[in-house]
Amino acid sequence: MSRFWNSNTRNLVPYVPGEQPKENNLIKLNTNENPYPPSPLAIERIKNLNTDLLRLYPNSDGEILKKAVADNYNISGQEVFAGNGSDEVLALLFKTFFDEKSYVAFPDITYSFYPVYCNLFQIPYVKVPVKEDFTIDLDSYPENATAIVFANPNAPTGLYIDKERIEKLLKERPDTLIVVDEAYIDFGGESCVPLISKYDNLLVVQTLSKSRSLAGLRIGFAIGNASLIEGLKRVKDSFNSYPLDTMAQIAGEAALRDNNYFMETRNRIINTREWVKEELKALGLYVTDSRANFLFVRIPGISGPEALAKLRQHGILVRNFGADRISDFLRITVGTDENMRKVVECIRIIMAE
Amino acid sequence: MSRFWNSNTRNLVPYVPGEQPKENNLIKLNTNENPYPPSPLAIERIKNLNTDLLRLYPNSDGEILKKAVADNYNISGQEVFAGNGSDEVLALLFKTFFDEKSYVAFPDITYSFYPVYCNLFQIPYVKVPVKEDFTIDLDSYPENATAIVFANPNAPTGLYIDKERIEKLLKERPDTLIVVDEAYIDFGGESCVPLISKYDNLLVVQTLSKSRSLAGLRIGFAIGNASLIEGLKRVKDSFNSYPLDTMAQIAGEAALRDNNYFMETRNRIINTREWVKEELKALGLYVTDSRANFLFVRIPGISGPEALAKLRQHGILVRNFGADRISDFLRITVGTDENMRKVVECIRIIMAE
Repeated sequence: MSRFWNSNTRNLVPYVPGEQPKENNLIKLNTNENPYPPSPLAIERIKNLNTDLLRLYPNSDGEILKKAVADNYNISGQEVFAGNGSDEVLALLFKTFFDEKSYVAFPDITYSFYPVYCNLFQIPYVKVPVKEDFTIDLDSYPENATAIVFANPNAPTGLYIDKERIEKLLKERPDTLIVVDEAYIDFGGESCVPLISKYDNLLVVQTLSKSRSLAGLRIGFAIGNASLIEGLKRVKDSFNSYPLDTMAQIAGEAALRDNNYFMETRNRIINTREWVKEELKALGLYVTDSRANFLFVRIPGISGPEALAKLRQHGILVRNFGADRISDFLRITVGTDENMRKVVECIRIIMAE
Repeated sequence: MSRFWNSNTRNLVPYVPGEQPKENNLIKLNTNENPYPPSPLAIERIKNLNTDLLRLYPNSDGEILKKAVADNYNISGQEVFAGNGSDEVLALLFKTFFDEKSYVAFPDITYSFYPVYCNLFQIPYVKVPVKEDFTIDLDSYPENATAIVFANPNAPTGLYIDKERIEKLLKERPDTLIVVDEAYIDFGGESCVPLISKYDNLLVVQTLSKSRSLAGLRIGFAIGNASLIEGLKRVKDSFNSYPLDTMAQIAGEAALRDNNYFMETRNRIINTREWVKEELKALGLYVTDSRANFLFVRIPGISGPEALAKLRQHGILVRNFGADRISDFLRITVGTDENMRKVVECIRIIMAE
């Protein structure tokens, strides 16, 4: 602590991302990374990049990325905001739309960065409990919430809310900003993006980190009504004009255009997830119906931290969150079939001990 | 404007970066980019990157970058913070150390992003006039300023304050945070980094965008006492855990290690700057004694905007700032000798008209 920290900095409890271990021999299933490499088209663009370009500033708005997203959804580039991963997009979103007079509601079990943003920008918030089975009950959100934020599928449960139910929420609360964080939507959900033309109170957040295998290049988006996007751009341009580097823009665009590879790899992950789900259920685990690229499971008779430690002894890195109600659960990223067979086998061994 | 913008967003006047034109035939001297390509070592690392790595999250603190900066200055990695360009580093710095109870002082003529950060985070500030010849008078800063921020060499004047004078300031004001933005220090100034071990009220900000030809990869640093750096990390981890992508970290480290190429290219830029200075003075222009990679000049008998337009007609893009006292000046980035010969020639033609 330094005497120069301001009072807010003194009180911050930062988000703690999953470990990036230095050992290479671990099966890394702790940060929801894609087990497959980025699109061959993206790799080709990286290999062929005119590196002289790197002496120049990038396009400040990630125009080619925005265009590729817009083309995928048949919307306009003005309805897309590009940022340095969906984490930065969310941070800028909280700063653009919320302040000390807001009242932001999100589930008690969801992405744990949301309350961190609120503390950073001194935004009042409420955590609304999910039901006993971890489903989000959109009917239980307070009338006076100025915004509702949730991940869909939710993290770390993987549970999914269908588009019709979200549309009902948008209609019921036209003056509440609804933020749907679709970091995991590509693994089996239906995106809310088509609703942005009808509802000016909707912002959808997406990322290339998971389904496009580009966590290393930091690319995220917000998609919504052009006037919402304009606000984000204003705040971004008051914070950092060029958050997306040239390489990220070029490779990200290629990954977005390479739909065959995208479909192939995400289908593989969905297939893997489904057989692992069944195997783990057969072993007697509690397994949520995850639509994401991770499983959320409880091994009977063993605490979360203990299960985490035992899997690590077997060379498998997963994640456990200390929070209420989920401290005995593990979040296991869906890896390759081969790695997931090892996971199932190790859990079988641990349970037999 | 959307009804969902918060009141602060409604009032923002974002920073406007220099244009990145789509035409390729312009001589681009408007954003202080380096005319020489990045270090061959950096390019080699990019070309040989194991692209499978990109599916994984990067190291969240840019460790290899911090180590390379620390090695260059013979300091510790804990005294270095790495961010997405010095713009993001500055934004996080303003958020970490200043708030609505601060009183931040900076020159009236300096990097125009400083007041933008203050408005974004609602930080009170005062602009202290530079002298008639544009030099910063460190004796004129208010006693009650909680922080003093300036660029050294200053932007867009290029004027330089020597390290001894800054050390005097650090001694005189032990409870004032002094932020020295050294974006241009490598073009002929002496860095204040060696002072960080003696003064815990000093933060130095640097970038790889200019002297290391990596504007396209977005890499900046803050250097200071470990407790100041820890504060920055806390705020960064409450905003975006991974602002620096894998490619930037790998190429940036290589550029920092390639000191021969760095010395060669920055010496070339210094030599070019000095002969252009003399030629323009001989033509009768007012030319400041810039120690940066740009020149700050006034062409007699022609307004700044008019000079800007005429140079553009000749295919040369430079920058003019509309601010008081400098609206008739042009900031001209130092390019290659060949391009600068064209600049001198065009100015000669414009003056003869």
